[in-house]
Amino acid sequence: MFEAAEVGRSVTKQEYEHEVAGLRERLLEMQTALRSADFPLIIVIGGVDGAGKGETVNTLLEWLDPRYVETFALGTPSDEERERPSYYRFWKALPPKGKIGIFFGGWHSGPIVERVGRLIRRDEFESRLNNVVAFERLLTDDHAVLLKFWMHLSKERQRKRLRSLEKDKQQRWRVTPTDWAHFEMYDRFAEVSAHALRRTSTVAAPWTVLEASCRRYQTLTVGRMVEAAIRTQLAARAAAKTATARGAAETPAVVVASEPVQPPEAAVAVANSGVTILSALDLSLTLSKHQYEARLQASQSELNRLARKAVKRGISTAIVFEGVDAAGKGGAIRRITGALDARQYRIVPVAAPDQEERRYPYLWRFWRRLSRAGTITIFDRSWYGRVLVERVEGFCSPAEWARAYGEINDYEEQLHRHGVVLCKMWLHIDQDEQLRRFQEREQTAWKRFKITAEDWRNREKWSSYEHAVNEMIERTSTEIAPWTLIESNDKHHARIKVMETLCAALEKAL
Amino acid sequence: MFEAAEVGRSVTKQEYEHEVAGLRERLLEMQTALRSADFPLIIVIGGVDGAGKGETVNTLLEWLDPRYVETFALGTPSDEERERPSYYRFWKALPPKGKIGIFFGGWHSGPIVERVGRLIRRDEFESRLNNVVAFERLLTDDHAVLLKFWMHLSKERQRKRLRSLEKDKQQRWRVTPTDWAHFEMYDRFAEVSAHALRRTSTVAAPWTVLEASCRRYQTLTVGRMVEAAIRTQLAARAAAKTATARGAAETPAVVVASEPVQPPEAAVAVANSGVTILSALDLSLTLSKHQYEARLQASQSELNRLARKAVKRGISTAIVFEGVDAAGKGGAIRRITGALDARQYRIVPVAAPDQEERRYPYLWRFWRRLSRAGTITIFDRSWYGRVLVERVEGFCSPAEWARAYGEINDYEEQLHRHGVVLCKMWLHIDQDEQLRRFQEREQTAWKRFKITAEDWRNREKWSSYEHAVNEMIERTSTEIAPWTLIESNDKHHARIKVMETLCAALEKAL
Repeated sequence: MFEAAEVGRSVTKQEYEHEVAGLRERLLEMQTALRSADFPLIIVIGGVDGAGKGETVNTLLEWLDPRYVETFALGTPSDEERERPSYYRFWKALPPKGKIGIFFGGWHSGPIVERVGRLIRRDEFESRLNNVVAFERLLTDDHAVLLKFWMHLSKERQRKRLRSLEKDKQQRWRVTPTDWAHFEMYDRFAEVSAHALRRTSTVAAPWTVLEASCRRYQTLTVGRMVEAAIRTQLAARAAAKTATARGAAETPAVVVASEPVQPPEAAVAVANSGVTILSALDLSLTLSKHQYEARLQASQSELNRLARKAVKRGISTAIVFEGVDAAGKGGAIRRITGALDARQYRIVPVAAPDQEERRYPYLWRFWRRLSRAGTITIFDRSWYGRVLVERVEGFCSPAEWARAYGEINDYEEQLHRHGVVLCKMWLHIDQDEQLRRFQEREQTAWKRFKITAEDWRNREKWSSYEHAVNEMIERTSTEIAPWTLIESNDKHHARIKVMETLCAALEKAL
Repeated sequence: MFEAAEVGRSVTKQEYEHEVAGLRERLLEMQTALRSADFPLIIVIGGVDGAGKGETVNTLLEWLDPRYVETFALGTPSDEERERPSYYRFWKALPPKGKIGIFFGGWHSGPIVERVGRLIRRDEFESRLNNVVAFERLLTDDHAVLLKFWMHLSKERQRKRLRSLEKDKQQRWRVTPTDWAHFEMYDRFAEVSAHALRRTSTVAAPWTVLEASCRRYQTLTVGRMVEAAIRTQLAARAAAKTATARGAAETPAVVVASEPVQPPEAAVAVANSGVTILSALDLSLTLSKHQYEARLQASQSELNRLARKAVKRGISTAIVFEGVDAAGKGGAIRRITGALDARQYRIVPVAAPDQEERRYPYLWRFWRRLSRAGTITIFDRSWYGRVLVERVEGFCSPAEWARAYGEINDYEEQLHRHGVVLCKMWLHIDQDEQLRRFQEREQTAWKRFKITAEDWRNREKWSSYEHAVNEMIERTSTEIAPWTLIESNDKHHARIKVMETLCAALEKAL
């Protein structure tokens, strides 16, 4: 969930100043248009201590006309509030159509904080998250634009921040014992919030996890997304009205309603601009041949041991391989199967759906292929095609790939609950390395079949794929089924990391 | 939930035969059109033992071309199935686009049966119902038409049915000890399924509760709804494609997706045709003046006692009055307030939303009006306006009132969980009695203000209102907040039933 927000994104002072002038103007223009629109804008700001939530909102308020914005930091409920159901305070604070409401912590922080502190049980937590989803659904069904930002700091950065504040005489007072107490809970807080974010990220109201390492980057991203979100919804409402008017004239019995769509790709891309989780990978990692051989042998024998244990215990494993073309998925898979008995595993190569498969929801072919207890299934590409190739190539609609994140998370949750070990790996190489490998393939007779015109075409869409991968990891690297990124410029390093990741996942589950 | 399916709906043999010929033809026509459409039809049949589930499906299969229909009665999972997550079997059985799949029990009966037998805890039950909703959402998002029928028999009818089978020598073998054992669990089964139905009734896939007293009525209704549902979805898909094509040409950035809509009013109305829960009321109930006065005094003093107890314990009460114009809401309310101290209660008369209120989701004004602990709030009309006057008069869109059932149930669940006692009453009179009262009002100087041109206009929409009320009760009479219908042709009877219903609700909660 948070990996994609630990890659060191930043914006220079110069870039920032250059951008802000125009952005402020556009923001005011959008805010003016919003005032006579039939929807409000609701912004939720969540995240860890010291992630600049206040600063970001303060800057945003400087940019906007504050007369039409209300900000709420709802702390402990008052007597008045405690005598009503818990959502009373949020309803009371809702902005009317045409206005902007900013909620620190939103309706999410209550359940998260209480769960972190073990004041509520797991089932109560789930039921509270259900309430969150129902409430947000009601708002977005009523056309509200709901932008939810989660400001994230890695544990290391959080520690550094507290230390550096303590060293500074002027700032020392800012660090309270509570801050350190919270820091001690960092891991638990991260785990609970990752779960809450996954459960409450919907197509109409997805979370945006924002890296809080650079205030300029953070503020600029929030500003741009606010602008884009208002602009998109204004257009969507106008289009819906036209469609309804037309629909009413032509087919009175049918309601063509405008589905609340997520901010369009353009707006989301803003948050991913510059650095992505992929561009932040250290692809220079290598392993000598000697080290490689030693560790390969060790990990293969370990895998063999673990796989036999899994068979005995009836535990299935699903290994998902995704990655850039020519990143070496085949080679990595052979290193795995080399350690296994042929009866233990199945390889499922995934290409475009065939005619039969297209007659079902896209997850159908993966449900069918679930193997019996104790088997290892290796997916050479997978259900993630929906949010990668199908998204980038336009084989499915934006509404379809947008809702696929939630559907995939639900699917994997069902596998997880059934006890299936899930191991998802993205094999990555950079563009130069890919070019080198493509050329090598073309020059090697027995590798030539591996390279097609399509590979060259995909290569041209490198940056679209990079954005799609970044979002995929942001949305589907969950606490129950995390992604592991494999730096693959060096095949030795890649294969060993694959083997050791898999062994660790099995070890943990057994 | 089930009240609206205990009113004795039936279809004569003659009506049935007259209708069936045409229906079969239209069904086959729709099935043929479906075969080349881009969606499947999925029918779920649930309900109590002996409610004619099998018979109904058998007749439906006679009417359809069985080559394009598959029926599944998924019993105990096989070894094969147990080795996969529980939805594997449903995925495996899904009909492809263009075909029809009929599921006895569907994915609902597992959680219901296990909860009835206390094999799973409440939280596990809730989480399984979440899975149901997510699964169905995925299907309908993918444009599947999902029709869910719940065949209902009242406890009395169930008992009679078993007894009469036992008396018949030819049929006696049909009644097993298991049947009687199930019958013993009737109330628990009804409570658990009412909850499951409420939680899994969504706009895109609502439950239709069908009275199982008359097979002809049952089969005809299923047949008509199948026909209407296919017809509607064919039109919706065609409209969506046109809209998308237009949208693509005109506003490429905006996605106007077709929201899966519920079968249109026309189709739903079928299930309500003829008898409704209102027409089945015995409006001839009366109470002599003497009885009235004695019981009024008794219930007022009881109410006074209970209300003081509620104040002490900080328990709030919300009383919802809805009803036909001139049914006597005002008089009933005065009998309640006559028993109370003015500081204990508030009356909230609900008219059309004002300009400020229209700038928020429609539930906003009711959230705001929640009073503090220990208060009794009397709503003279309520949030149900959304699915009554706003629906019938077209003040909101079909999509808006259709999703209001779920939103209202969520709202009332939040009140209930907070400990608020909810008492919802529908005051009903027939058309003759209304006319008499209207005329009387016009002729009485001090009552004349009560009657307006609007009342006469509403009267013309009597049958639309009757359908809307029937559906409202079907969808929002829940195990936590049931509706009570008050036969109000006789004011004495009505007022006493109101008082005693309220006292009983308070008594139960205190």
